[in-house]
Amino acid sequence: MNDNALAAAIAAGDSVRGTTSPNPSVGAAIVSGDEIAGVGATQPPGGPHAEVMALRQAGERARGATAVVTLEPCNHTGRTGPCSRALIDAGINRLLYLNSDPFPQAAGGADYLRERGVEVEFLNQRVEALEPWLAATRLGRPHVTLKFAQTLDGFTAAEDGTSKWITGSEARRHVHEDRQLRDAIIVGTGTALADNPSLTARDADGNLLARQPRGVVIGRREVNASHLVQYPDIDTALDALWEDGARDVLVEGGAGLAASFLREDKVDAVRAYVAPMLLGSGLSTIGGGLATTLAEAQRFSLVNHRQVGEDIVINLTRKV
Amino acid sequence: MNDNALAAAIAAGDSVRGTTSPNPSVGAAIVSGDEIAGVGATQPPGGPHAEVMALRQAGERARGATAVVTLEPCNHTGRTGPCSRALIDAGINRLLYLNSDPFPQAAGGADYLRERGVEVEFLNQRVEALEPWLAATRLGRPHVTLKFAQTLDGFTAAEDGTSKWITGSEARRHVHEDRQLRDAIIVGTGTALADNPSLTARDADGNLLARQPRGVVIGRREVNASHLVQYPDIDTALDALWEDGARDVLVEGGAGLAASFLREDKVDAVRAYVAPMLLGSGLSTIGGGLATTLAEAQRFSLVNHRQVGEDIVINLTRKV
Repeated sequence: MNDNALAAAIAAGDSVRGTTSPNPSVGAAIVSGDEIAGVGATQPPGGPHAEVMALRQAGERARGATAVVTLEPCNHTGRTGPCSRALIDAGINRLLYLNSDPFPQAAGGADYLRERGVEVEFLNQRVEALEPWLAATRLGRPHVTLKFAQTLDGFTAAEDGTSKWITGSEARRHVHEDRQLRDAIIVGTGTALADNPSLTARDADGNLLARQPRGVVIGRREVNASHLVQYPDIDTALDALWEDGARDVLVEGGAGLAASFLREDKVDAVRAYVAPMLLGSGLSTIGGGLATTLAEAQRFSLVNHRQVGEDIVINLTRKV
Repeated sequence: MNDNALAAAIAAGDSVRGTTSPNPSVGAAIVSGDEIAGVGATQPPGGPHAEVMALRQAGERARGATAVVTLEPCNHTGRTGPCSRALIDAGINRLLYLNSDPFPQAAGGADYLRERGVEVEFLNQRVEALEPWLAATRLGRPHVTLKFAQTLDGFTAAEDGTSKWITGSEARRHVHEDRQLRDAIIVGTGTALADNPSLTARDADGNLLARQPRGVVIGRREVNASHLVQYPDIDTALDALWEDGARDVLVEGGAGLAASFLREDKVDAVRAYVAPMLLGSGLSTIGGGLATTLAEAQRFSLVNHRQVGEDIVINLTRKV
């Protein structure tokens, strides 16, 4: 039963990615006896947290039940009351949580419940929907994913500039689905001037998806793109985005901005779409050297890799 | 039962890769009732074929049994007698085969058996151990796999030439295990002069593995490496290797030779070891442009990809 409840809580958290920042995308499930009595996820800022949503659905069945949450219940009164107290008030007598709350103001929920006689278990399990938020909270700036689509030998365009399409339609659809999970999409001025990208999340027919990230351009050259917010440099952009509540941002290029983010050690994750083709020459994925000797190469940890259409998507994360 | 017999025949063929050229690495299983009565694989040139090995193990139990073979039984008398006749003589009454024999002199085994009252079924299933041999037979030259180990952004060494180690120890062990399945390992004169590679297949302690491929160097510059056979150009090398019985060869570099093989359209498969690191600049995997516009990029089909240690190995094959 607990495995199903765990999966339900994780899926609930996944379902609200891109809608909760600056709050984390948390999922919760209430298990009464052998049944899942309620499932909930964090609502947009100002709305109820996951635990409250799940408790509402469970109603009276929450009394004596087990709560499964992907993140330790918050213990402070922000725009909503503390979830720790809501769980006590509902009569929960067992809590399983998958990640500790790293946010000093909000932490302490597990202790609060334990002190009031609730059996508390910390499962310490990686939850993908929380990773960007956890890293951002630790870093004090938005979590940055560098995304690119390239040939196997590392080119994003041929010598004549042609780049449509290196990856197939399934990979491109995957990119748009990913965009709507992010708080902002960032490009450099070169890409903005050359491509005038909309940076929107669209479906296969070009229609806008329900959730839209902010469009951001970084650089000092003048870009006349009213749909994009421009910042002169990376630090200014990340500070402003953080203040504006962004926690999970995607850098989509070009090669120069990618190199700058990497050189400033601001890349927390890499998402590479690799097409099964070779060009031998062209526009390199990263615009300029990061290291002159192999020992100084920027190393990441492999998270996962999978086939998307005819291409492979490879996810890397910062080495810890 | 047939699934087990199929798996046993395929595994038997796999087990003799690298030892059978110019013959294919075939596997066979004899199924009597519900039991596998015999399993066999092609022996080194001049030795018995897979069917004969499996029939010997089955003995009298072959009478009335089903034979499962990865390749259509040969129908001609070469250094060994025809397998088609051996199957009839043993009293087999059903044949399942996975690939047709594309070799005009040897083909016709299925018809021969069918005419003599054997129930024959062609399963038309891709068998990895046979792919290089099938392609080589079609092409009239050895099947060529281009192998490289690179950073995600397409560099095989840093600007200062350092390349040890881009991939981890598990990927390097994988390379050595792969080498012993090949008939020859090929490098260019630049690599031979710079690295003086042994091109042997070794275990983790540096000891030679049981099977050793030929070491070959291609190019006109003088290379004083008595353990390598040198040819002036790709066509001369492939012709000589074909005549010498090689059917499955591995091109290991460097970048210049890789570019030459690609430009001459002599790359049938690509095996790329991709390390989760970025360099931004360095020695490119392919030494020079293959196309100036994306439409002319060399496209392959993705066969599979999997994690090896911290790295990913990606296998591509020629687009058909």
